[in-house]
Amino acid sequence: MTAVLDSLQQGRQAVLPAMRAAVDRLDPASRAIAYYHLGWTDLDGNPTSGGGKAVRPALALLSAEAAGAPPATGLPGAVAVELVHNFSLLHDDLMDGDTERRHRPTVWAVRGAASAILTGDAMLALANEVLLDAEGPGAVAAARLLSEAVGELIRGQVLDVAFEQRDDVTLDECLDMAGGKTGALLSASSAIGAVLACAPARTVSALAEFGADLGLAFQLVDDVLGIWGEPSVTGKPVHSDLRARKKSLPVTYAVTHGGAPGRELAAWLTDGDVADDAAVRRAADLVDLAGGRAWALEEAHRRMAAGRQKLEDAEVPGRVREELLALARFIVTREA
Amino acid sequence: MTAVLDSLQQGRQAVLPAMRAAVDRLDPASRAIAYYHLGWTDLDGNPTSGGGKAVRPALALLSAEAAGAPPATGLPGAVAVELVHNFSLLHDDLMDGDTERRHRPTVWAVRGAASAILTGDAMLALANEVLLDAEGPGAVAAARLLSEAVGELIRGQVLDVAFEQRDDVTLDECLDMAGGKTGALLSASSAIGAVLACAPARTVSALAEFGADLGLAFQLVDDVLGIWGEPSVTGKPVHSDLRARKKSLPVTYAVTHGGAPGRELAAWLTDGDVADDAAVRRAADLVDLAGGRAWALEEAHRRMAAGRQKLEDAEVPGRVREELLALARFIVTREA
Repeated sequence: MTAVLDSLQQGRQAVLPAMRAAVDRLDPASRAIAYYHLGWTDLDGNPTSGGGKAVRPALALLSAEAAGAPPATGLPGAVAVELVHNFSLLHDDLMDGDTERRHRPTVWAVRGAASAILTGDAMLALANEVLLDAEGPGAVAAARLLSEAVGELIRGQVLDVAFEQRDDVTLDECLDMAGGKTGALLSASSAIGAVLACAPARTVSALAEFGADLGLAFQLVDDVLGIWGEPSVTGKPVHSDLRARKKSLPVTYAVTHGGAPGRELAAWLTDGDVADDAAVRRAADLVDLAGGRAWALEEAHRRMAAGRQKLEDAEVPGRVREELLALARFIVTREA
Repeated sequence: MTAVLDSLQQGRQAVLPAMRAAVDRLDPASRAIAYYHLGWTDLDGNPTSGGGKAVRPALALLSAEAAGAPPATGLPGAVAVELVHNFSLLHDDLMDGDTERRHRPTVWAVRGAASAILTGDAMLALANEVLLDAEGPGAVAAARLLSEAVGELIRGQVLDVAFEQRDDVTLDECLDMAGGKTGALLSASSAIGAVLACAPARTVSALAEFGADLGLAFQLVDDVLGIWGEPSVTGKPVHSDLRARKKSLPVTYAVTHGGAPGRELAAWLTDGDVADDAAVRRAADLVDLAGGRAWALEEAHRRMAAGRQKLEDAEVPGRVREELLALARFIVTREA
C-alpha cells in the first residue's frame, strides 16, 4: 500500500504544476472557486493542503507507460481527466443537494448554484482546450476519447436521475448506469495516456476495458460504503444513501434478487414515509439479508480479476501492470 | 429583409439534418429534452414547427463562403455553435430563474434543474465531438476556436452573475462582460466556417472581429428591448430587466454617465424595496432621461459600422459581405 501512496504522491507532484497552469487560465472568479473546490485554498483564498487523491491523473500517467512511453506523455490527459472529474463533481453536488465533500462545504452550498454550474462548465471546456493544445499526433484522438467519455458520463447521470422516479429498475440497467456514471471516466483515464502515446488499438482497448472494470468495482464498493461506511472515513452521514432511498447497486440487487427481505425493502423504498433512524437501520439490514452486500463485494472482486486478465492479455509490461492493479485496488478499497 | 429570411430559411434547411444527426447521438432522455428545448417537439414528444432562428449556423455557413469555400464546409461548425448556444441557454435559464423562452416553458421549469444542467452539459460535449469528428485539416483548429469561445462565454456569464452583487460596475466592465457573454460565440460563429476552410489568419481575424462587433450591437439592442421591448415580440414581461434590477448596458451607461436622472436611478437600483409597476416605469424613464437608451442605440450603430469596415478591409467577397451584413442587421434589429 505504501508503494501505491508513493506512486500517487509522485503522480500528484508531476501533475500539479500542469493542473495549476491549466486552472490559472480560467477567469479569476471561476479560478478562485476551482481552487477552493480542488482543495488548494480555503474560502478566503488562503492556501490549504489537501484535495483529492488524483487517482485519475495517476491512471493517465501509468497508461502512457503501459504503451512504453514516458509518464509525461500522459500529462495533458492526466490534467484533462482530472478537470472533467471535477466538472462532474461540481454539477453532481448541486443536483444531488450534497452540502459536504471531503469534509468541506460544497461549492453550491457556499457560493450558490450559478457558481457551481459555471465553474463546472468552465472546467469541462478547459479539459478540452488542454488536449487540443497538446502536441503530438495523439492529442486529437485523446480529445475525442475524452469527449465520448463525457457523453457516457452524462448519460449515466441522466439515468441516475431518471431512476429516482422509477420503482422497476433492473440490475442490468443499474450496472449500465454505473458504467456510464463511474466507469466511463475511469476507463478514459486508463487509456488516455496510451492514446497520447499513439499506442496500438489493442493496447488502448485493453486499458479502456480495464478502466471500465475498475469503475464498476469502485462503484460497487462505493455503494456498500454509502450504506455501511464509517462516516469519519466517507465524509457522509451514516446510511446516507439509504436515507435518500438511493437505488444503488446493492439495493437494486436486493430488491430484484433478494426474496422476502428484498420485497420488504422494496415496500419500504416506496412507502413515502419520512424515514427515522430505526427504519433506515432496518433497511440496511434488509439489503444485507437479501444478499445485496455480499453480491456487491463479490462482483467487485470479479471485475477486478477481469481487469487484471485484460492487462495480461494485452501484454502490458509487468511493472506497469502491477502498478495499475495496485492503484486499482487502492481506488476500490480506499477512495470513497 | 426577405432575402435574409430566405437565407436563414436555406441555412436552417441545410443545417437541420446535420443538427438532428448530432442530437440523435445523445442518450434518449437528453435527446428528448434537447428536442423540446430546440422547438422540434412539444413536451409529449409530438413534432412541432418552430425553434430558434438559427442565426449562428447561418453565420457559420457564410463564414465558409467568406473564405471562398462552399457553405457545406462550415456545416460541422454550424452544428457546433448552435449546440453551444443551446447549452448556454439551458444553463442560463436555470441560473436566471427564467420560466419562459420563445413563449414556451423553459426546461428547468418543466423538467427540473438536473435535466437542464445535464442536457446542457451533454450538448456542450456533443459540440466538441461534432468538430473532432469533422474531416479536413481545419477541424482541430475549429474545435480550439470553439473551446476558447466557450471559455469566454462562461467568463462573461460569471461576470454577469458577479455584477448582480455589485453597485459600482463601470461601463467598460459591462462592455467586457457583454463581449464574453454574447460576443464570443457570435464571433466564433462568424469565423468558424473560415477556420474549417483553412482560410488565412487575416480573413479569420476579420470575421471574428466582425462577429464580436455584431455581438455587442446585438446585446445593446437586446438590452434596450429588455426594458422597452414589446412583450408579445420579446416573449418577456414588460420592463423585465428593470424589474430584476439588471445592470444592463443602457442602465450602466445611465448610472455612470447620466447626471441627476442617473443618480436617481442608481439610488432606486439599490434601495431594496419591492418594485411596483409605477416605480419600474419611472426607472425606465430615468434610463431614457439619463441618455442610456440613445447611447445604446448609437453605440450599436457604431459597432455595426465597425464590423462592416472589418469585412471590407479583409476583402471578403462583396456578395458574402452583404449577406453577412444583412444577417447582422436582422440579428440586431429582430432577434430578441
